[in-house]
Order: sequence, then C-alpha cells, then structure tokens
Amino acid sequence: MDRPSARRSKLRRLLKRDRLPGLLVTNFTNVQYLTGFAGGDTFLLITGDDEILISDTRYETDLSNLCPDMKAEIRGPSKTTIQAAAEIAAKRKLPSLGFESGSLTVSMHGTLDRTLPKTELVATEGLVEELREIKDADEIAAIRRAVEIAEKVFNRFKAGYRGDWTERGVAADLEHEIRQRGGLGCAFEPIIGVGDHGALPHAMLTDRRFDEASTILVDWGAREAGGYRSDLTRILNVGKIPAKLEKAYNAVLKAQITSIERIKPGVRFEQIDTAARKVIEKAGMGKNFTHAVGHGIGLGLHEAPRLGPGQTGTLQAGMVVTVEPGVYFPGKFGIRIEDDVLVTKNGFEILTSVPKELSDTIVS
Amino acid sequence: MDRPSARRSKLRRLLKRDRLPGLLVTNFTNVQYLTGFAGGDTFLLITGDDEILISDTRYETDLSNLCPDMKAEIRGPSKTTIQAAAEIAAKRKLPSLGFESGSLTVSMHGTLDRTLPKTELVATEGLVEELREIKDADEIAAIRRAVEIAEKVFNRFKAGYRGDWTERGVAADLEHEIRQRGGLGCAFEPIIGVGDHGALPHAMLTDRRFDEASTILVDWGAREAGGYRSDLTRILNVGKIPAKLEKAYNAVLKAQITSIERIKPGVRFEQIDTAARKVIEKAGMGKNFTHAVGHGIGLGLHEAPRLGPGQTGTLQAGMVVTVEPGVYFPGKFGIRIEDDVLVTKNGFEILTSVPKELSDTIVS
Repeated sequence: MDRPSARRSKLRRLLKRDRLPGLLVTNFTNVQYLTGFAGGDTFLLITGDDEILISDTRYETDLSNLCPDMKAEIRGPSKTTIQAAAEIAAKRKLPSLGFESGSLTVSMHGTLDRTLPKTELVATEGLVEELREIKDADEIAAIRRAVEIAEKVFNRFKAGYRGDWTERGVAADLEHEIRQRGGLGCAFEPIIGVGDHGALPHAMLTDRRFDEASTILVDWGAREAGGYRSDLTRILNVGKIPAKLEKAYNAVLKAQITSIERIKPGVRFEQIDTAARKVIEKAGMGKNFTHAVGHGIGLGLHEAPRLGPGQTGTLQAGMVVTVEPGVYFPGKFGIRIEDDVLVTKNGFEILTSVPKELSDTIVS
Repeated sequence: MDRPSARRSKLRRLLKRDRLPGLLVTNFTNVQYLTGFAGGDTFLLITGDDEILISDTRYETDLSNLCPDMKAEIRGPSKTTIQAAAEIAAKRKLPSLGFESGSLTVSMHGTLDRTLPKTELVATEGLVEELREIKDADEIAAIRRAVEIAEKVFNRFKAGYRGDWTERGVAADLEHEIRQRGGLGCAFEPIIGVGDHGALPHAMLTDRRFDEASTILVDWGAREAGGYRSDLTRILNVGKIPAKLEKAYNAVLKAQITSIERIKPGVRFEQIDTAARKVIEKAGMGKNFTHAVGHGIGLGLHEAPRLGPGQTGTLQAGMVVTVEPGVYFPGKFGIRIEDDVLVTKNGFEILTSVPKELSDTIVS
C-alpha cells in the first residue's frame, strides 16, 4: 500500500471513531497529504467505500497520472468545485457528511447545505491535521532533504559573505539556489534582518546593505520537490561582538539547547516552551522573548503541534518541530536560533546541523 | 486623502447602501487593498465611524509605520486573531455586522457567533472585490510596472535562448531576474511547457530541456514591489514551423486581436469570450479552446471580472483584464497568446507590448 493510501486508511478509522459516513476534504494541503496531488484547487470526498477527487480540466491529465487508483470527477467551466462536490455527495445519499470547519468558507457551506438538504453537515476540526502531526518515514526523509538543501545554500552563502549584499538581494539568491538544487523554492519569504531589522520577529525585506550594521538575523528554509519544508534561523556577526549582544546570544543558545534536550515522547508541549523561557528569564530578558518556542513543520510551515504556553498536548515519536527561542531589542538588534528536531522513540534527533556557537556566527 | 482611505470611504458607501453598520474584512488581499498593509494575518473592522486593524505582535511596528492614521489592536499570544476581532466588535454593540462569506471559515463564524450573541451576522459576497474591479490611477501605474518588469525579463531571456535550458531552470531564472529588478517575484509559478507539455493548460514544471521539442509555451508574469501583477503568454518556435502549428497560431492570434478590439465600456463580459471563440470555431478548433478567454488582474492573479461564457456583467473603464485564447492538442502542442488590457473611457489600451506575430516567435 502506498503512503497516501495508508494515510487515507488511517483517516477512515478516525471517521469510524467519530461515526461519520463521509468527509469532504477542502484544505488543499490535506488533499495533497492524502493523495500526493499538489496542484491545488481540488477537493477530496472520502466515504466508507469510495474516494473521489473533484477538480477541473486543467488537472485532468495530472490527476490520472498521479492518482491512477482514485476516481476523479472533472467539473465543467459552468460549475464551481464546491458545487460539483456537493452534487457528487448528493448522489451518495449519506445521512451525514463531515466537513473541515477550518477551511470550508461560509459561502461553500451554503452551497453544501442547499445541495444536500437531506444530509446532516457535521463540522470537524483538525482530523487530517491530527494525522499530519506524526510524520511517516517518507515524510521524515522529505524533511531531511529540505534541511539538506537549506543548509547547503546557507553554507555557500555564508562562505562568500560580502558587505554590499542587501536583504532583498540575498533573499533572491537563496530562492534561486534552492531551485537550482531541485527544491520548489524557499519554504517561506526569508527574514533577513540587518541590524535593528532583526528586532522585528517578521521583518519585511528592504534594500538595506549588510555592512550597514554588524549583526544580521537570517531565518530561511527550503521546500523540497515534494513540498516538505525546513525552517532555520542563524545570526551573523561582522567584527567585534558587543558585550550586550554576546550576553543575549549566549542566553538564547543556552535556552535553545535546554529546550531541545527536554524533547521526548510524553512531555507536554508547554514544557518545551517553559524550558527555554526559564533560561531567558533568568538572564533578565524574559519580556524580550515575545513568541512561542516552536511549531510543527511538514507540508505546512506552521503545523500542529504548537510548542507554547498553555499547550497541554504531549510530544509523540514522529513529530518534527522547530525550536526557536529569541530575544528582541527594538531599535537595536534581535537574536533567534532555530533548529528542526525529530521526536524519536527515546528522545530527539536534531535534523539541522549548521554550527551555532557564538564563534560560528562571525563572518568577514 | 490617500488612496487606501479613499477606498475605505467608497466601501462605507456600499455598507450604507446595504444598511450594514459594520464589516469585518478577513480576506488578506482585501485588507491590503483597503489599508496598504501587505503582511497578511491581519483583519480589518470597519464601522460607521471607526477603522481598526486586528493583528499580532509580529506586525506591531510595521502597522504603526504603514497605517499611522488607523487604530491597531495587537492581540496577545493566548488569543486568535478572529477571537480578538470578535471581542473588539462586541464592545461596539452593533445591531448587525457584515462578514465576507468567501473568506470567513465556518470555524471563524462560530467564534463570531459565540462572542457576539446580540449582533446579527450578515453574509456579504464580493463587496470589496466589487471595488477592486475598477482600478484607480495608483493601481494602473502599479500594473504598468509589473508589465514592464515581466517584459524586460522575458526579452532578455528570449534574446539569450539556449537549447540546454530546462523548464524548471528557466522558471528559477525568471524569478531571480524579477527580484533583481525590484519585483516581489513571479506573479505565479510560471508555466513553461516544452512540446506537448504546452498542451496542458496548467503544466507543472519538469526538467525537460528546451531542445527536446520545437515549440515552447511560456506563461509568466511579475509582482511589482506593491504586490500588483502582470500575466502574459507567448510561444517560442525553434526551426521550421509545421503547417498545423502555423494554422493554429494564426487562428489564436486572430481570435485574440478580434477579442481585444471588442473591448470598451458597456460590452458584456461574455461577448469578449464569444468574439475569440467564434474565430477559433471557424478555424475548426472550437473544441480545443477549453477555458474562458480572460480574467481581471490586480493584487490578485484571478480577480473579477471573468470573461467567459454566461458572464453577463459589462466592462467599465478602469478594469484591467487578460485576453488569452488558446488551443490545445494533447500529446502534441498548445498555443496560447495572452496580453493585459486596460478598459479606457472610449475603448482599450493594451498594456503589454512583447511582439506576437508568428515571425516574432522564432528563436534559434
């Protein structure tokens, strides 16, 4: 059984558990996870004994090549995809049908409701996302590839450091190099913050030159050919490192390592966050750590689980999460250090390997 | 009055027309259109006398710089953006509140419903999209910039044609060049179809080399710095052009020109489609023209209006649309020719200028 069909079998078990005779999957990332088809604009209807992709003429050939074992309903141009899906579901006369309340819009819900007057529509929350939390072997291999591409590109870039580079120019070069190495592109628009731009956790790219400041924050990742992502952050320092920055860097690094070392199955998500937070608080910078310590990655950039305050779920083997504490000093600089970590049966494996000691940050 | 605030005034007039005391804007492109803020993950609440952006700490600094005349509510990490928006709306004790039914999910609707028990929630469809159909002077200037970047990059690429290029490699290079010229990147993942890949209207990129066939379809565009898009398609031919391809090309070109020449205010959308369809049908290829002739472009890639069968709305000055008839011969080749056209007071202006005579398609 191929991976996507194994995933659909698991989903069927969840539907059985929840006594749902069918589910309409409208989140395109979930559709990709369950079928292998990455084109988007395509829904998936799963019932007890049937699996139907609902798409349009643009993808007819791709779907029959990529998902030969599944039915595909190709709608005409006079119909929307949700309308086509509703009509297909209506033929099946299901007493009830689950939908994904996090992706189905109110407008689409109206279409289902009008077309399926005899079917009870049941909101579901995070059913496929629940499966996606635990990565299978293919997914872990894909994330490893996404890490490898991201690291090769970063190492080459760091080795060729030039002060006349700009934030925007480096982002363009990272994108290009990732594509040249067979990736789909950056996992997200990189954050390249020169000087105080690094103090904005999600700085937008500008034309600021690297030599306009002595500290640069680089948050980047790659999407490998199948769509899986990596997500890393490193700091670059040019010239002598000021004492305040050194103190902040060491606190964040210690927090990050402490946090990673807590990772193993059964530990609550919030405990991973707390581990980092305590170290940073002890260093007197608690109020400068303004976000959660990490999140799951996979086909999505921010997936379940969230490793943050109040998150009471527990780690399980097969989860892949970022660990990325940071401290931000508006108008001055920001420090964040981020790695991707696999939860293993007995603990953890750090998938990323770009060196991160303070001495490793020095370029020029 | 700056453009975004003029747009908000227009939206207020639509709300008054529809007797809505407020609207929660959850479509991020609509938020950008109404505020100038492009970061995403931010909602906008508009009431009779107030305008509030609802966002999180990542964007606090950006919002106060970019939208100094608007209020911003920055939620803490323990709350979702929709929850924060609902609580802010609740304080205003509105009798009713409009929401965007095409972007609000069922889950978000549930949050509004629970938090605003005394407010009637009213589904709206396409209110902001209605405004976005007619571009103002700033938007037209931005689309011209997006066209200019796309054309410069294409012309340079065409002049340097090499047979050992691949679909994926050229896509990476287009992206890089667009960014180097100050654009945000491609307007969409380019379609670069060598040989029969051009017969798939939305072919995915492969490593096929350009010299593996004699005809290449290139569908590309740029996003300029403010997010506005261009969208063009041209064909490249290497060596002698087969008679069947020449016939198809000439039919599509004639259809495209005929279609463009019908453009002026007051003409029904479907008539622009019919004009092209008739020419292609007359040439005996009607069933090979499998999609609508065009669509609006702007901040979005596919905006209102749709120029397709059954679309009975009428063109108005200030609309910017693609005109892109095509014919596809599965397993052989595809031909599509696409330009971006501004509807003017008296007719049309073609914004794109890459030559498109059959002789212009020849590279070597």
